[in-house]
Formats: sequence, C-alpha cells, structure tokens
Amino acid sequence: MGAMYTMYIQTEGHIQMLDITKEVQRLVTESGMASGICVVFLPHTTAGLLITENRDPYVAVDFTNAVRKLCGEEKDYHNLEGNFPAHLSAGLLGVSQTIPVEDGKLALGTWQSIYLMEFDGSRKRKVRLKLMED
Amino acid sequence: MGAMYTMYIQTEGHIQMLDITKEVQRLVTESGMASGICVVFLPHTTAGLLITENRDPYVAVDFTNAVRKLCGEEKDYHNLEGNFPAHLSAGLLGVSQTIPVEDGKLALGTWQSIYLMEFDGSRKRKVRLKLMED
Amino acid sequence: MGAMYTMYIQTEGHIQMLDITKEVQRLVTESGMASGICVVFLPHTTAGLLITENRDPYVAVDFTNAVRKLCGEEKDYHNLEGNFPAHLSAGLLGVSQTIPVEDGKLALGTWQSIYLMEFDGSRKRKVRLKLMED
Repeated sequence: MGAMYTMYIQTEGHIQMLDITKEVQRLVTESGMASGICVVFLPHTTAGLLITENRDPYVAVDFTNAVRKLCGEEKDYHNLEGNFPAHLSAGLLGVSQTIPVEDGKLALGTWQSIYLMEFDGSRKRKVRLKLMED
Repeated sequence: MGAMYTMYIQTEGHIQMLDITKEVQRLVTESGMASGICVVFLPHTTAGLLITENRDPYVAVDFTNAVRKLCGEEKDYHNLEGNFPAHLSAGLLGVSQTIPVEDGKLALGTWQSIYLMEFDGSRKRKVRLKLMED
Repeated sequence: MGAMYTMYIQTEGHIQMLDITKEVQRLVTESGMASGICVVFLPHTTAGLLITENRDPYVAVDFTNAVRKLCGEEKDYHNLEGNFPAHLSAGLLGVSQTIPVEDGKLALGTWQSIYLMEFDGSRKRKVRLKLMED
C-alpha cells in the first residue's frame, strides 16, 4: 500500500522555521499505516526541510542566523529574482526527508522535529507526504 | 515491484550543473510505474545531487560560485588527491534524493529540476535509479 | 517485506567520523533482502550521516576541520546547551540516507562509505535501519 497526501502551510516572515511534525504524524495516523517509510517532499525552490532539535527555543534563532550568514546576501549573486540566498539555503538543507514509521509512529528521536524552513516568505507552501507500507 | 536502472552522464568542465530531470523521467515512464518513489543515487564521492530552480539561467552560475566559496580551495586541505573541496561539496549536497511518483510522473514542483553537480570533472558519471512501486 | 533494526555505536572524542558501512551491510545480509532500499536514520540532533570517500585517510581530518570552520564556534550562538555548531553540522549533513540494495548488497560506489559524524561526543549513538523490499 502507498498513499500520497498534500498539506498547505502558510508561513509568516521572510525567514521562518516551522515545526510540522504534528501535521505529518496526523496524516501517518490517518492513513492507518503501521510500518514503512514516510517521505516528506517540498515542491519548492526557496524553502527546505530540516530535522533538528525541538526543545531549545534558541535553536530557531541560531539556525536562522547561521544559514543567513553561510548563504550570503542577495547583492553577492546574479540571479534574476534577487533571492539566490533562499535557493542556496534550500539546496543545502534539501527538499526531501525520509523517516521510518513503526507501530504507526514516525521513528524520530526524542528531541527531533521536522521543520519547514522558509527562506523567501511569507508564502503559502505545499508539503507532499508519500507513505510506503512494508 | 521494484526496478533498478543505470544512466551514464558525460560531464564537461571541472565544475558543472547538469539538469538530468528528463532522463530520470524517461526511465520512470519506461518502467510503467504509476505510483511509488524514485531514489536517485550517485555512486561517486566528488559529485552530488541537488533539486533546485530551473528557470533562471543565473542560478547555475550562482550555485557554482557559492559552493566554490563555501568549500574553500585545495590548498586549505590535506587530502592526498588535492580534490577535497569536491568531496566537501558533494558531502554537503548529498548523493541520494528521494522523489515521490504519482500518475507516472515525478512529483516535482513547477520550478524544480534534479541536477547532477559535477565538482571534479570532466568525467563519465554513473547515476543509479531505484524505483519502488506502491 | 520490511524490517527495522537498531545498532548502537559508541563514539570517541568530541568530533569523530566513523565508518559504519560494514555494520549496515551485515544487517542487510542478515535480513535476507535481495532487492530494495535501505534507509539509515539517526534519531539524534548533534550527529549526522555522510556518504563519502573511504580510501584517503586525510578525508576524515579535512571533513572535521571543514565542518568545524563552516559551522562556527559556540560563542557565536545563543542556544542554551552551548552546542549549536553540533546542531548546525548535523542539520547540514542530515540524519537520513537512502541507499538502493541489489543482489543483497548496498549499491554504493567503489570509494563510498557511510559515516556516522559525531559532533558532540563522546556518546552512545543509536542508528536505525529500515529495509524496504521490492
């Protein structure tokens, strides 16, 4: 069995780190799948997916600043839309994450959440979920 | 059902960004798979895979320059072959991308393409495709 | 058929690059799976997974130094535990790798190995393997 879902997420602010774990888990639960994999896929080029720490509130601040610093400023680049740092940030983090599912739950660690990383918002983003059952 | 394919891609130039989406889609179509996932896997250590923007011609220039800048120069490192920036670039982008397939099509966004990122060319590169049907 | 395994790896030193390919292959062999995919998943937020070059002994030294340099120092950040560079390093490399399996073997390239990248050790790390058969 396999199933494909689409979620829509409204981001706020130019750069934002949004925990989408509950929404992903809700669809895994809804599907009734006990065991398999969940592929989270973002069909966008200026937002990425990141699995990281969810307890320390400063991690979002730090990730935002660190990615901004690593990826430079718009004036450093040539692309036509003037948003290349957003493309680079999304490219470095990636747009696809594969997570095992066991006993109907995402097999994330205790401190892990799945984040939608907005780098060129605010926008309405689409997140695709592909579930593949054993 | 599952199927495994191999494609060969000749790169040109030391660093190059090559859109391989059409070749990947052609094999997905050939397989007859309607719904599942497509894993693109690169069995190399100095080339990577990136899913990013395909309309703006400056994105390739910007990605090339940005990755070169992030990953430093050969003289900064110790590795024996003198190509560590290529290993680092490939490592940061990764060599594996998983994309959902629905109705026989890669579920990419409108502006997304799959790129083979050559960092130590020119070479003949091998790309493996693993298709897993629902 | 699908199977889920857990391996425990004791890391040594604050930052360490550990080749876990043999352990992963051993479990793939044990499972009896001939063809499919192997998802390696790390349920941690200060360690990552990397597929890279395994012959040149300087690659580990270079990766360690390069990631340290890219990700800055603890004093540059605000997070409460003082280990943000470890979160950033893990985030950039990612915690999930999907590798095709054919004829019972991981379809890695000749020079590729799978590395557990410890950024905040030493610790006992858990590695999850999800196998999905065709």
